[in-house]
Amino acid sequence: MSKVSIVMGSDSDLSIMSQAAKVLEEFGVEYEMKIISAHRMPDIFVDYAKTAKDRGVDIIIAGAGGAAHLPGMCAALFPLPVIGVPIHTKSLGGVDSLYSIVQMPSGIPVATVAINGAKNAGLLALKMLAINDSTLLSKLNKYSEGMKDSVSAKCEKLEKTGYENYLNEM
Amino acid sequence: MSKVSIVMGSDSDLSIMSQAAKVLEEFGVEYEMKIISAHRMPDIFVDYAKTAKDRGVDIIIAGAGGAAHLPGMCAALFPLPVIGVPIHTKSLGGVDSLYSIVQMPSGIPVATVAINGAKNAGLLALKMLAINDSTLLSKLNKYSEGMKDSVSAKCEKLEKTGYENYLNEM
Amino acid sequence: MSKVSIVMGSDSDLSIMSQAAKVLEEFGVEYEMKIISAHRMPDIFVDYAKTAKDRGVDIIIAGAGGAAHLPGMCAALFPLPVIGVPIHTKSLGGVDSLYSIVQMPSGIPVATVAINGAKNAGLLALKMLAINDSTLLSKLNKYSEGMKDSVSAKCEKLEKTGYENYLNEM
Amino acid sequence: MSKVSIVMGSDSDLSIMSQAAKVLEEFGVEYEMKIISAHRMPDIFVDYAKTAKDRGVDIIIAGAGGAAHLPGMCAALFPLPVIGVPIHTKSLGGVDSLYSIVQMPSGIPVATVAINGAKNAGLLALKMLAINDSTLLSKLNKYSEGMKDSVSAKCEKLEKTGYENYLNEM
Amino acid sequence: MSKVSIVMGSDSDLSIMSQAAKVLEEFGVEYEMKIISAHRMPDIFVDYAKTAKDRGVDIIIAGAGGAAHLPGMCAALFPLPVIGVPIHTKSLGGVDSLYSIVQMPSGIPVATVAINGAKNAGLLALKMLAINDSTLLSKLNKYSEGMKDSVSAKCEKLEKTGYENYLNEM
Amino acid sequence: MSKVSIVMGSDSDLSIMSQAAKVLEEFGVEYEMKIISAHRMPDIFVDYAKTAKDRGVDIIIAGAGGAAHLPGMCAALFPLPVIGVPIHTKSLGGVDSLYSIVQMPSGIPVATVAINGAKNAGLLALKMLAINDSTLLSKLNKYSEGMKDSVSAKCEKLEKTGYENYLNEM
Amino acid sequence: MSKVSIVMGSDSDLSIMSQAAKVLEEFGVEYEMKIISAHRMPDIFVDYAKTAKDRGVDIIIAGAGGAAHLPGMCAALFPLPVIGVPIHTKSLGGVDSLYSIVQMPSGIPVATVAINGAKNAGLLALKMLAINDSTLLSKLNKYSEGMKDSVSAKCEKLEKTGYENYLNEM
Amino acid sequence: MSKVSIVMGSDSDLSIMSQAAKVLEEFGVEYEMKIISAHRMPDIFVDYAKTAKDRGVDIIIAGAGGAAHLPGMCAALFPLPVIGVPIHTKSLGGVDSLYSIVQMPSGIPVATVAINGAKNAGLLALKMLAINDSTLLSKLNKYSEGMKDSVSAKCEKLEKTGYENYLNEM
Repeated sequence: MSKVSIVMGSDSDLSIMSQAAKVLEEFGVEYEMKIISAHRMPDIFVDYAKTAKDRGVDIIIAGAGGAAHLPGMCAALFPLPVIGVPIHTKSLGGVDSLYSIVQMPSGIPVATVAINGAKNAGLLALKMLAINDSTLLSKLNKYSEGMKDSVSAKCEKLEKTGYENYLNEM
Repeated sequence: MSKVSIVMGSDSDLSIMSQAAKVLEEFGVEYEMKIISAHRMPDIFVDYAKTAKDRGVDIIIAGAGGAAHLPGMCAALFPLPVIGVPIHTKSLGGVDSLYSIVQMPSGIPVATVAINGAKNAGLLALKMLAINDSTLLSKLNKYSEGMKDSVSAKCEKLEKTGYENYLNEM
Repeated sequence: MSKVSIVMGSDSDLSIMSQAAKVLEEFGVEYEMKIISAHRMPDIFVDYAKTAKDRGVDIIIAGAGGAAHLPGMCAALFPLPVIGVPIHTKSLGGVDSLYSIVQMPSGIPVATVAINGAKNAGLLALKMLAINDSTLLSKLNKYSEGMKDSVSAKCEKLEKTGYENYLNEM
Repeated sequence: MSKVSIVMGSDSDLSIMSQAAKVLEEFGVEYEMKIISAHRMPDIFVDYAKTAKDRGVDIIIAGAGGAAHLPGMCAALFPLPVIGVPIHTKSLGGVDSLYSIVQMPSGIPVATVAINGAKNAGLLALKMLAINDSTLLSKLNKYSEGMKDSVSAKCEKLEKTGYENYLNEM
Repeated sequence: MSKVSIVMGSDSDLSIMSQAAKVLEEFGVEYEMKIISAHRMPDIFVDYAKTAKDRGVDIIIAGAGGAAHLPGMCAALFPLPVIGVPIHTKSLGGVDSLYSIVQMPSGIPVATVAINGAKNAGLLALKMLAINDSTLLSKLNKYSEGMKDSVSAKCEKLEKTGYENYLNEM
Repeated sequence: MSKVSIVMGSDSDLSIMSQAAKVLEEFGVEYEMKIISAHRMPDIFVDYAKTAKDRGVDIIIAGAGGAAHLPGMCAALFPLPVIGVPIHTKSLGGVDSLYSIVQMPSGIPVATVAINGAKNAGLLALKMLAINDSTLLSKLNKYSEGMKDSVSAKCEKLEKTGYENYLNEM
Repeated sequence: MSKVSIVMGSDSDLSIMSQAAKVLEEFGVEYEMKIISAHRMPDIFVDYAKTAKDRGVDIIIAGAGGAAHLPGMCAALFPLPVIGVPIHTKSLGGVDSLYSIVQMPSGIPVATVAINGAKNAGLLALKMLAINDSTLLSKLNKYSEGMKDSVSAKCEKLEKTGYENYLNEM
Repeated sequence: MSKVSIVMGSDSDLSIMSQAAKVLEEFGVEYEMKIISAHRMPDIFVDYAKTAKDRGVDIIIAGAGGAAHLPGMCAALFPLPVIGVPIHTKSLGGVDSLYSIVQMPSGIPVATVAINGAKNAGLLALKMLAINDSTLLSKLNKYSEGMKDSVSAKCEKLEKTGYENYLNEM
């Protein structure tokens, strides 16, 4: 049974949205991944969102760009948390996607992450699941330790070699 | 049978959206007017949009603010033209509404008018209907004449009385 | 007799605007296509817009970038629907074009589509014509089915091959 | 034991942030509410965020305006979900708050809601808790029904009385 | 014979645009003032702009808000300088007006001043005329002296009375 | 001898800029306060900025709105730190002031604070002076303690009385 | 004697600003061209701007990017018209330059053209000079005819060859 | 003992932030340079900021992008001046970084420079130190002379060779 459903309206969003999947894999959390457009296949979409709970889905991660309605429409149909990922757009940089996802009306929240922030969407889903899963919480704490150590190592390297060498090696 | 369906997600949009209704009345075109939220009542919404054509609706005028999904979701379900009215918002002035409505993906157009431009949405619907209705076209031409005459009268008054008197009388 | 007139102010907009023409061709709808600048040849422009109705034009699709006046001036002179296509600009991403087209004053609507949304402009014109053309409406419905099937096929492929293979094959 | 911690940096945010508290009360979920500034009392803040988990807190809801660092710094110190509420600002309308909260770097997600969207922050927290609480999920479903019925009643009233009467009674 | 023509599309712009007239009066420069809409009366507008030169007009000052086409269309038809005044708008603060006026295509310049900057439009017109009018130039220099003296007096008063008294007396 | 010079281009900025003066008074630091416009009295301005160092000025705090050149021009003429305060503007909220002050070219820095952030400008000046003034540093630390205590008191009150009572008493 | 002075603060603006020079050459109008920074050499700048009139300069064209103070400071020191050219910037697209130039305070106008609009700045200068130079006016009218003919030729070509051939040949 | 501490949250900011270091080296001012993330290693960060004063640090220069909290959190913990460098971001151009750094609440100033303005951050730090260091002030004055001479040389070259040759040699 899938815990998380990752959905996007077009395969042009896949290279970004796959970063959410990678994080979930890393933590061993089951997920499904689908390309479903609320605009181009509204019936299939409604069926997808309404039946997600019964498929075992606890959280939907929805990515969309431009006039991005997918996350909000998921939130209208799925009773548990929906995480929205605004996708970068060529003309407006993704500010259109961001406003279309985050400015939801009262009663229908979407947990919005940064533009192209699919990796953080995955981590946010893990944190939600970790509320009742202490094993997952331990893994998240280890993950945080890893991030800390990685930056510390970079800091040490910079202080040892100086910025010129550091930049040359990048 | 209604020709035009005016829909909004909340009665807070009614004072703006009623301007579309007024224009349609002025031109004697039948319309229905509904408060239906794509977010708060998705099933009723889907039913509304799918059956609109059979109710005789040729054009939907949909107004929404913030993460405004109503016009775009109408366009996903209704095969004929959808006109979107972005409603002014307190924090972002309606630029969130505008982007959420106008930046639709390829395949699902929404005919977007200005922020709070419900009156123009009504006129745009009339122009669409006038493609095959020469009586309506004549009325639209007369309406344009009226606008012209109204501005001309103001210009004459300004030239006669001067701007100080004109401003005092406003 | 042309049903739709596609007009732009400069041939730098042609690669975008031709997407409207392609859609009309696909649906077998007659169109004319012109490069006419409201700024650089105002007399020719006025003549073009005033005589369009007599050339059989039911809808004008006008594309323009920057301080984009062409769609709005068409709407001032042509009594039937005008669809505006804001063209992407280098410095402001097309938000200048969008505001110049969508924020029309009361009385003179322009049906605005997304930045660079010429294909949707073509589809919107078809939807307007389909109000009184059931054959065209059937074609539009088939087109929608095609879009749905295309996304469905992508979804199936993703679920079968996984995102890594899918991305590698893109 | 508190399930949710509501925190803000200044009591000027209290009238907005109390809307999150009201929703939690309505659903019978325990919460604490604090005014703690990450800028003005960093030590107290660090202690607050580090000990929250041990106080039984599952979710932090943090509201802030301008260069809003409170939600992001909570997410740096608290291992479970943090929900960020961008507060409206006089000069920039809250777009400064929104960007400061939503554009978090990889590894440290904040679940961002709309500008001034504290009520939705409360609902989002409830949805997170409902993943493992079927009683809460039932209440949320009832709440959704209530929203639907409320809009339906408005729609009916509008269709019965017409927009003029409706507006007069508002 | 008028030297300067002040034109606006609607009398809602008159309270701002009259500030240009006041400046011209102060310097004793002849002007005409008209309300002519390029959108609502295109024929009258074209005639106005084409005949302005023959009426003795050397400079047009055009004010408009929203999708502001009046200044640009003046520049298309009138061979001498056009000064554009972007009018403040409720939803977008006048940034729509500004972009619609300043972002003119190559070949058709509009001399744009600040949002609601009608007084500066008047002064800019005077500076243009002063290129060949040394009397006017002297008056402009005296005007600049006056501005300097007025600020100097305020500075002196502030230094004498202190900011608290100064603010109390404002 | 003045340590800090507070300058603004117009007395309309005085109510904001006086907040910088108040902070300096509170800490017992000498200051001068002037209304000098770089645009309206460039000679006086150049003289002011060039002689400031000799008047004992260590830091200039300059406030301006719109196309705000005063801080940057101070930085061009005065060799020590210049702090810029972008003043809120009606049409653009002060984003014009902010960009005009913060986006300085390489070589000529202006230390920019928030829109209307004159109080913080005063504090920033104090921090600069405190680099070599341990008495001032002690006062700043005490000031920080005061801020902390003030927020702590509010937090305690909120926890004791609840948000409803707290809001009623505001 | 130079009629027009073209000035910029950095040679990085030269490729854009030279377009103004080219237009002036084309029309046979004398000009000088200088790189002078108001920030980096304020004394030389003040001398430049104050003596321009005596060098025969009737109009200054000033280009600048970011916190662009050059045009506004020219307007503070030079009594005749100043045309401002906002230069495109990498981070903000030139909207910083535009606001810094166009939003001038009352009393000190700058005639602002589009971002990177140096060619139009040149044409605007020519139009100002043409107020009292009928030969120049004739040339400008011929130039306008040339623009018209050029677009007309493109339109004809498009109508003859179709958009596919046209695009292939671009 | 270090006078200035340069800190950034990620080595992706190093190529920009090293420009601050270069300026400090040029002027012979001691500095330390660190990669420390307030989000990924809050404890190390708090320790860094609290102990900076004891390490001899007089000024912190902090660079960050997106939801940039590093400069503001430094200002919360370090009693002397903090200079913030907003880093350019792909989607929003750095306006997110700018707002997150400059819009600090009352009591906690950050001296903000331009997007990617690390070189100016270094110069601003030098100006702060020069308040009590006349040798440094002399060097800064010499540096300013150098900038002036460099632009003057470019101006001379332009006037001698003309813009075409100048551009060809760039």
